[in-house]
Amino acid sequence: MLPTPKKYFITAGCSEGKSRLTAFDNALLRARIGNINLIRVSSILPPGAEFDPELKIPFGSLVPTAYGYIISDVPGEKIAAAVGIGLSSDTFGVIMEFSGRCSRDEAYKAIEDMLKEAFETRGMDLVDMKIEAVDHVVKEVGCCLAAVPLWY
Amino acid sequence: MLPTPKKYFITAGCSEGKSRLTAFDNALLRARIGNINLIRVSSILPPGAEFDPELKIPFGSLVPTAYGYIISDVPGEKIAAAVGIGLSSDTFGVIMEFSGRCSRDEAYKAIEDMLKEAFETRGMDLVDMKIEAVDHVVKEVGCCLAAVPLWY
Amino acid sequence: MLPTPKKYFITAGCSEGKSRLTAFDNALLRARIGNINLIRVSSILPPGAEFDPELKIPFGSLVPTAYGYIISDVPGEKIAAAVGIGLSSDTFGVIMEFSGRCSRDEAYKAIEDMLKEAFETRGMDLVDMKIEAVDHVVKEVGCCLAAVPLWY
Repeated sequence: MLPTPKKYFITAGCSEGKSRLTAFDNALLRARIGNINLIRVSSILPPGAEFDPELKIPFGSLVPTAYGYIISDVPGEKIAAAVGIGLSSDTFGVIMEFSGRCSRDEAYKAIEDMLKEAFETRGMDLVDMKIEAVDHVVKEVGCCLAAVPLWY
Repeated sequence: MLPTPKKYFITAGCSEGKSRLTAFDNALLRARIGNINLIRVSSILPPGAEFDPELKIPFGSLVPTAYGYIISDVPGEKIAAAVGIGLSSDTFGVIMEFSGRCSRDEAYKAIEDMLKEAFETRGMDLVDMKIEAVDHVVKEVGCCLAAVPLWY
Repeated sequence: MLPTPKKYFITAGCSEGKSRLTAFDNALLRARIGNINLIRVSSILPPGAEFDPELKIPFGSLVPTAYGYIISDVPGEKIAAAVGIGLSSDTFGVIMEFSGRCSRDEAYKAIEDMLKEAFETRGMDLVDMKIEAVDHVVKEVGCCLAAVPLWY
């Protein structure tokens, strides 16, 4: 089997770029995850995974990551991305991502609501939440991204 | 290299949610794959992989999965998702996914047609098909999902 | 951790199909990556990875791959996909993907520009580029795809 991740952090960033993909690339760099290979996952924090905000991941590593993002080429548009982790007392957690044409605060609130719903649906107690949210007003081509990289 | 999966099952589910992502999360839970980390793959059943409908996968595991889904927030709309595996007699199989604004039967038929085409193109004999299809009439925000998780 | 890839190649292909997914499947076959499980990654060439255009990958393997694609069902439309790798002298490289309703030459140029921007942003010297680009005029349902599979 693929090894289950044991550590995680949470990050977010926004940037402009000359194209849609370079705006995304630049937002990844701002979020300090631009030089690794993100593998998108949906979206459970493994039981016992430790929060490690100081994680250094070698260049080019394959990194399972839950993330949400939005790219816009509409100058003046406000865009936002957010990600959140809902923690239980004794088992796995749940990760939720959001992005949209809205403010940071609206994205933050959307994540809170989704985490509450995810725990209610599972009949689990939500003992803590970690949320990161960012927004950005597009100049030419902008991207906002929020991510929970999972690591070892 | 990443280890090649050795087992698989096939599943599908539909659900409502308060948001697009929680509708997706709830459909995953209905399909009994809501508490793992899906890694989306396109879409080959490895040679020799065994069908194991009773597979239990630990929470938070990284699970290579071929899946199709659709989310709709149009009340009254019928949505469907289907997934199918085309089996050969002696080598790999092919997995096809479909989702759309249609009925379960149409999604099922789309999968059959795609599997036949995939085997024709490869000049291989299609000796069996396993297909799962579901549909749902949206109340507020609905999701249908069909998946083939690959495991060890 | 997941093992970091050590080899790579670059490929592209276009095809027609009877449906959107089989057009995609057929384009993968043309690109000689149709019988493996692509895991999409974003998009760094690991330090020291070797270019190996003769790589044979076993059926059904899980293959981390950076790719871009476009599917169109508009007869007569020209579609294109391109992928490129920017190489540094001594560390990781950067992979960029592009697809659009344009010609092969425009897709090629878009990749060049994105690779230059990605290296500028990182303050790194771009010592070489490998680019593959393809285009196709849609008959019924067409797909163009360009990919950098990473392997071991």
